[in-house]
Amino acid sequence: MFIFWVSANSVLLSGPSSLSFRSHTCGELRSDHVGHTVTLCGWVQYLRNDLFVILRDFSGLTQILIPQEESAGHLKAVLCDLTAESVIKVTGTVRQRPAGQENKGMPTGDIEVLAENVEVFNVSRKLPFEIKDFVKKSESLRMQYRYLDLRSSHMQRNLRLRSELVMRMREFLCNVHGFVDVETPTLFKRTPGGAKEFVVPSREPGRFYSLPQSPQQFKQLLMVAGVDRYFQIARCYRDEGSKPDRQPEFTQVDLEMSFVDQTGIMSIVEGLLQYSWPAEKGPIKVPFRTMTHEEAMRDYGVDKPDTRFSMKLIDLSEVFLSTEVEFLRSALSHPGGCVQAVCVPGGAKLFTGKDLEEVKQTARTQFGQELSLVLVRADGTLKSPLKKLLSVSSTEALLNRTGAKPGDLLLMAAGSLHTVRPLLGSLRLQCADVLESHGVSLREPSVFHFLWVVDFPLFLPKEDEPEQLESAHHPFTAPLPEDTHLLYTEPHKVRGQHYDLVLNGCEIGGGSIRIHRASEQLHVLKNILREDPSLLSHLLEALDSGAPPHGGIALGLDRLVSIMVGASSIRDVIAFPKSFRGHDIMSCAPDLVSEEELKSYHISVRWPTEQGGGGEEGK
Amino acid sequence: MFIFWVSANSVLLSGPSSLSFRSHTCGELRSDHVGHTVTLCGWVQYLRNDLFVILRDFSGLTQILIPQEESAGHLKAVLCDLTAESVIKVTGTVRQRPAGQENKGMPTGDIEVLAENVEVFNVSRKLPFEIKDFVKKSESLRMQYRYLDLRSSHMQRNLRLRSELVMRMREFLCNVHGFVDVETPTLFKRTPGGAKEFVVPSREPGRFYSLPQSPQQFKQLLMVAGVDRYFQIARCYRDEGSKPDRQPEFTQVDLEMSFVDQTGIMSIVEGLLQYSWPAEKGPIKVPFRTMTHEEAMRDYGVDKPDTRFSMKLIDLSEVFLSTEVEFLRSALSHPGGCVQAVCVPGGAKLFTGKDLEEVKQTARTQFGQELSLVLVRADGTLKSPLKKLLSVSSTEALLNRTGAKPGDLLLMAAGSLHTVRPLLGSLRLQCADVLESHGVSLREPSVFHFLWVVDFPLFLPKEDEPEQLESAHHPFTAPLPEDTHLLYTEPHKVRGQHYDLVLNGCEIGGGSIRIHRASEQLHVLKNILREDPSLLSHLLEALDSGAPPHGGIALGLDRLVSIMVGASSIRDVIAFPKSFRGHDIMSCAPDLVSEEELKSYHISVRWPTEQGGGGEEGK
Repeated sequence: MFIFWVSANSVLLSGPSSLSFRSHTCGELRSDHVGHTVTLCGWVQYLRNDLFVILRDFSGLTQILIPQEESAGHLKAVLCDLTAESVIKVTGTVRQRPAGQENKGMPTGDIEVLAENVEVFNVSRKLPFEIKDFVKKSESLRMQYRYLDLRSSHMQRNLRLRSELVMRMREFLCNVHGFVDVETPTLFKRTPGGAKEFVVPSREPGRFYSLPQSPQQFKQLLMVAGVDRYFQIARCYRDEGSKPDRQPEFTQVDLEMSFVDQTGIMSIVEGLLQYSWPAEKGPIKVPFRTMTHEEAMRDYGVDKPDTRFSMKLIDLSEVFLSTEVEFLRSALSHPGGCVQAVCVPGGAKLFTGKDLEEVKQTARTQFGQELSLVLVRADGTLKSPLKKLLSVSSTEALLNRTGAKPGDLLLMAAGSLHTVRPLLGSLRLQCADVLESHGVSLREPSVFHFLWVVDFPLFLPKEDEPEQLESAHHPFTAPLPEDTHLLYTEPHKVRGQHYDLVLNGCEIGGGSIRIHRASEQLHVLKNILREDPSLLSHLLEALDSGAPPHGGIALGLDRLVSIMVGASSIRDVIAFPKSFRGHDIMSCAPDLVSEEELKSYHISVRWPTEQGGGGEEGK
Repeated sequence: MFIFWVSANSVLLSGPSSLSFRSHTCGELRSDHVGHTVTLCGWVQYLRNDLFVILRDFSGLTQILIPQEESAGHLKAVLCDLTAESVIKVTGTVRQRPAGQENKGMPTGDIEVLAENVEVFNVSRKLPFEIKDFVKKSESLRMQYRYLDLRSSHMQRNLRLRSELVMRMREFLCNVHGFVDVETPTLFKRTPGGAKEFVVPSREPGRFYSLPQSPQQFKQLLMVAGVDRYFQIARCYRDEGSKPDRQPEFTQVDLEMSFVDQTGIMSIVEGLLQYSWPAEKGPIKVPFRTMTHEEAMRDYGVDKPDTRFSMKLIDLSEVFLSTEVEFLRSALSHPGGCVQAVCVPGGAKLFTGKDLEEVKQTARTQFGQELSLVLVRADGTLKSPLKKLLSVSSTEALLNRTGAKPGDLLLMAAGSLHTVRPLLGSLRLQCADVLESHGVSLREPSVFHFLWVVDFPLFLPKEDEPEQLESAHHPFTAPLPEDTHLLYTEPHKVRGQHYDLVLNGCEIGGGSIRIHRASEQLHVLKNILREDPSLLSHLLEALDSGAPPHGGIALGLDRLVSIMVGASSIRDVIAFPKSFRGHDIMSCAPDLVSEEELKSYHISVRWPTEQGGGGEEGK
């Protein structure tokens, strides 16, 4: 449909230079173009010896040769006068660089463009930092001048890779699998108790919209509506105050399908990621590995294991069944008590005293637990406060069971399964950090380990009220078919048709098959969760109006892309992120709004008083 | 990459039935499938004579034949017991319908499926309305049970057409022209005086985000950032209270390009619409017609002319230069005074007395203007209060000039150009309504007249302070190059590089080439608009940091799709629209929020008192 045609006054009809002032981008000229007259537009990266202007656009750099003849004096003067980051248009002829002057490190390094004409669009002031990849900038400076920070080649690459990824995802969902892209509202009703939902005052006194955390209700309603396959790259909102590397608004790849089971959804997601995965990041293999929640907790102590490295949790309870060591025996004597360990290969050799102390500190401060450290010396003897307490056979069993070798480090903890597992799961990661700080390569960021975690419990005891159950994920998740009968007898034993997608130890998605029968949903809400079902009456009514079996998933796009590009923060894959305090530093949002302007929304500010009280009380 | 393979237990790997319980959709079976065993999932449209179940999904209907043998008694009982809109899975064999029983009006009308197995997923209660296209439902019932309303074939079609349109647009922009899809924040800083912006309280006392009306600032900053070509299907927000057929949140196809002029943007948009236009709606021709703002006002009395029909404004000032008629002479004696008319073909014949009275009423109530009506009788004589006042030569000139023929109606108005044009522009449309109500086909909804309107004035006098100028569109629009010098001398004469895209008399898009030099932007803000430039200091700084020439446009997606499908309201192309009062009737949003929950946002509600005052004062 579209063709390239190039002539003296041509306009390109496709490609990145179509309909533009330029004929080519700064990154595309090669020896093939020698002799062509080209027009480039871009930013002055730098001037060299009054001889060259290095011109940059999103695609790369080209060397512009400044003519030195007297007849080109004006042109030379204009070019030599340019400040860095000024914006120009240059027309000239592509030449082979003189032999020996090629730059192999530069894709356009074989050629240069002899300038014949220049137009200066804009002269740049002196900038707060240089646009060079090696120039380090503080995070706050980057945020304040985001439009400059985005000029860096890695931010350009991140934004473009994200755009291309999303495009491929859309092609897969829409064109290959018949999904319908449906936009759902972001001005919605507040979820009762939805403490993390931003409110939006309306012009009706006391009435507020809220910005939803996900399109969960809408996507289920779309299935009831017969839309069959829905997806949306959905903007979601979560007000969590200041949490590191969280954003108040974020993006989900949100999808839902009718007449499908858990396997179907998982296959679609595997296909989606395989299809859209950037070629430069290497192919990914499907199906992904699957692990039950119980296996994940047992082996890794977390529900989102990083399976790029081993160091699994090892149960030593049997080893110490008849131990004399008091605290071990005591732990094992309680129901659900255990002794477990993690073996850190080379840990005894590599960990400094400070490293060991920090690991123990974490156990104490974050988990309120004591940790026993056992270092295996080069000669195979142990260094540990436990050493004297352990019998020869226990010691042997310990080394056998953990597979600890000379130079390894064992972290041992005793207590209830519910504390020991998360403790060791967390320390496993901390030890991986320490090993990497000592040069051990453990978790290659360019290796991608996808993992499904399945068979989560459907309900968990409430933290502050353990005899009462709450949803492990949300109240719409269906039970495993073989556990359905337990809903009516032993709901705490029910496993849900929920699946989490984990990539390199980060949860990048979660979804479930939903309850599609009104009676079952009502039972869960009313009898198990003891919630007021009238608050979800529209959903219950919908399920009662011919709801198909359905399920779906939401993938965290920001997180996914950040892992894909190896970014240390999701801020590096978002064009205009908020600071960790939720501020837009460039424009100063959020900002003060006059009481006058708030009047039409029937609200007023409750200024905190010295005593910390609310506005009116303090007046 | 993906292949179809069909066997007994096959799973389709692409297409709308991939990875699903079904083997086919309800709309796809044809004679070719006769003899195949198929599995269909869907909703019971209706039962016929205990012999047939008509099964529906998004793709269409299939007739399921209920087996009548005694051995299939259980299957028959289950099927005959189904209520309408229950959801089932049926497996059976495709059969040719007996000769004479084909249904030519139904795409699957040549076949039927003999049921062999059924699974009932969900039994539907009695619904508030039937899911049949011919069943009329009230708007409020449709909104309350939107998940049922969306089951109608036309809503299914609208949502799918919208999804496909957007997909094609993305392909064109990303794949053909190198645009980058960038998401911009929706929690932003409030525009000073931005009365139409929703506010979102933050957890910092007195500080609010706002939901932006468009990504205008971000897209310009992305150009400064060197992103080169940006687009986004952007959610935007506008708090206008209750306006008919407006939504508090709406969707824009938003794009911006660097190193491009007005022609370039217009060509991209023409290409975009041509490429994405649904084949079923017929091809559209590019380039679109272009009209200056002055021509639009002169000929149609509006800046968004519906060019599907003529009935242009005709200037009669010359005809009446030396008239004796007092009110005409008086109008012409004022500077900018004029006499103009619209000729309504067949109006004298078709308009009832009531129609004529209503037209005059509109002139009076909405424009405060008197209108002279002239009816040309079949014999060519006039019927009009003016008749006696007009000389023979004036009458002749009037008929000549307007081209009015026997049976036509002339609407004449005298006054200043600035009132007469909008008056006649509006009455032109009202008369078109009247003609259509009498069966004249004037504006075919399936005919698409695209039109660019260009050369808008850059500034307009403020309504309440006419000696002060305000931006006709926004303060970032660049002047026409040939008018730039007037910025410093006669700013009211400057035309802007602004362009509106009009489709069938509706504005569906607007954009401009932007000012890319800080000094020019500062002059416009400070000296012409007399605004505080410090409020836009980040934008001014950005322009001063190497901003390329750039421009863009935003298309109103909801409006575009609604015109495309011939919907009477944009609500018919939005999955979950708000009511005209901004309510979500299904879920009851906006809703009350407890004072307790508002505390973390440091706001309290100002309940209106009997006297209509604010909260605190009234206590």
